[in-house]
Amino acid sequence: MLTAHTIKILQSLDRKKYRQKHGLFAVEGNKIIRELRSSRYKIREIFSINPSGLDMPDANLVAIGESELKKISFLQNPRDSLALVEIPETEFVPDCRLQLVLDGIQDPGNFGTIVRLADWFGIEQVICSEDTVDLYNPKAIMSTMGSFSRVNVIYTDITAFLKESPNMSLGTDMDGQSIYSFAFPERMNIILGNEGSGMRPETESLISHNLTIPRFGNSKATESLNVSMAAGIILGQIFSAKEGR
Amino acid sequence: MLTAHTIKILQSLDRKKYRQKHGLFAVEGNKIIRELRSSRYKIREIFSINPSGLDMPDANLVAIGESELKKISFLQNPRDSLALVEIPETEFVPDCRLQLVLDGIQDPGNFGTIVRLADWFGIEQVICSEDTVDLYNPKAIMSTMGSFSRVNVIYTDITAFLKESPNMSLGTDMDGQSIYSFAFPERMNIILGNEGSGMRPETESLISHNLTIPRFGNSKATESLNVSMAAGIILGQIFSAKEGR
Repeated sequence: MLTAHTIKILQSLDRKKYRQKHGLFAVEGNKIIRELRSSRYKIREIFSINPSGLDMPDANLVAIGESELKKISFLQNPRDSLALVEIPETEFVPDCRLQLVLDGIQDPGNFGTIVRLADWFGIEQVICSEDTVDLYNPKAIMSTMGSFSRVNVIYTDITAFLKESPNMSLGTDMDGQSIYSFAFPERMNIILGNEGSGMRPETESLISHNLTIPRFGNSKATESLNVSMAAGIILGQIFSAKEGR
Repeated sequence: MLTAHTIKILQSLDRKKYRQKHGLFAVEGNKIIRELRSSRYKIREIFSINPSGLDMPDANLVAIGESELKKISFLQNPRDSLALVEIPETEFVPDCRLQLVLDGIQDPGNFGTIVRLADWFGIEQVICSEDTVDLYNPKAIMSTMGSFSRVNVIYTDITAFLKESPNMSLGTDMDGQSIYSFAFPERMNIILGNEGSGMRPETESLISHNLTIPRFGNSKATESLNVSMAAGIILGQIFSAKEGR
């Protein structure tokens, strides 16, 4: 049974203010919840319409009905379970050779996709400006498809970070050097800017080069690629260069 | 003024059956509507809350109010205008050296993103199985960000198409050859399978090789990349190889 009090807390977790107040966030879906067992995340409680299907006998499990799950889920089509998970302390991992730096990414879907890409390419850490969308936003968490538990996401003053970083800082925009001719260094920060306005000027002043994905189509009307797609293609090219060495 | 009859027709255009019956589909947003002037698409009528902002004095324009736009728009946040556009006849473009072949892609967002990628990389034609989501689905059209007017999208029996195509047909799956070591041929079809089940067996039997984007992260729990992201990274690599020649 879910108490009205618990429902209220759960529903409040779509706002950062309440996630921070309670130190909790929500994770939905049995597959991703099970993956948390081998992560640093601590599960406080799991609400499930099918506890036996979850196969986690040691968890603090609460059986609920479908209508109750509907009340607490952040999904249009709720899955099987929702876990209440503790927000851990973050620790900066020093000396990462390849890092993504997000300068004000706002869309939870783009953000989650970028974290998922980092996981795919084995990038340990993603550094975010303080105004980047929160990792624990329910939509962002869902968009990572579980990758949030395998990538270290840090929120910090990226200007101070870039100033101190020994890595070469590379920006991304429409008229930089082609990713196909650029000689990628051994250590780098790839900076991805806000969906509408790109990198902010303070960030741009700290980069060594700007990278561009050349457009091979002829029409100038073609919209520039979405930031998460651009990130994927650039990472693909970086690993192409690494593989070719 | 919008008549009840017109509203009914417009609202019906979210279903393929009615788009085909009327031979019409909807395009939203001034920027994309303006781009249609230099395309083969014919605009039947434009409903706009700001006709002068559209800057298309020769169009068949109907000024409407915001509440009327809300009634006919397929967007959560309607833009400025909605155009009623005629569905043209499609013609197969023979002899394309690089083509994308979609085998049952279902998600309009993935589909639209793939058409947008084709436009970016100058790929003239996208061949779709009959059960691939319809190009003129309102969500698919919006996801192309206007690219639908610059890429030739054909629905056909892809098995018959692949059998006759002079191009090398390349599949995409989890355990094929690495895109980083594969020698891409001069002429190819890149086949992208359904989001859940991949390529169907009849398609798989017609491919020469399967391609894989290597995963550099260590966790086997990492979800495979989304089909449109995979398409972007593979295309990025194909053009990397072309550039390097």
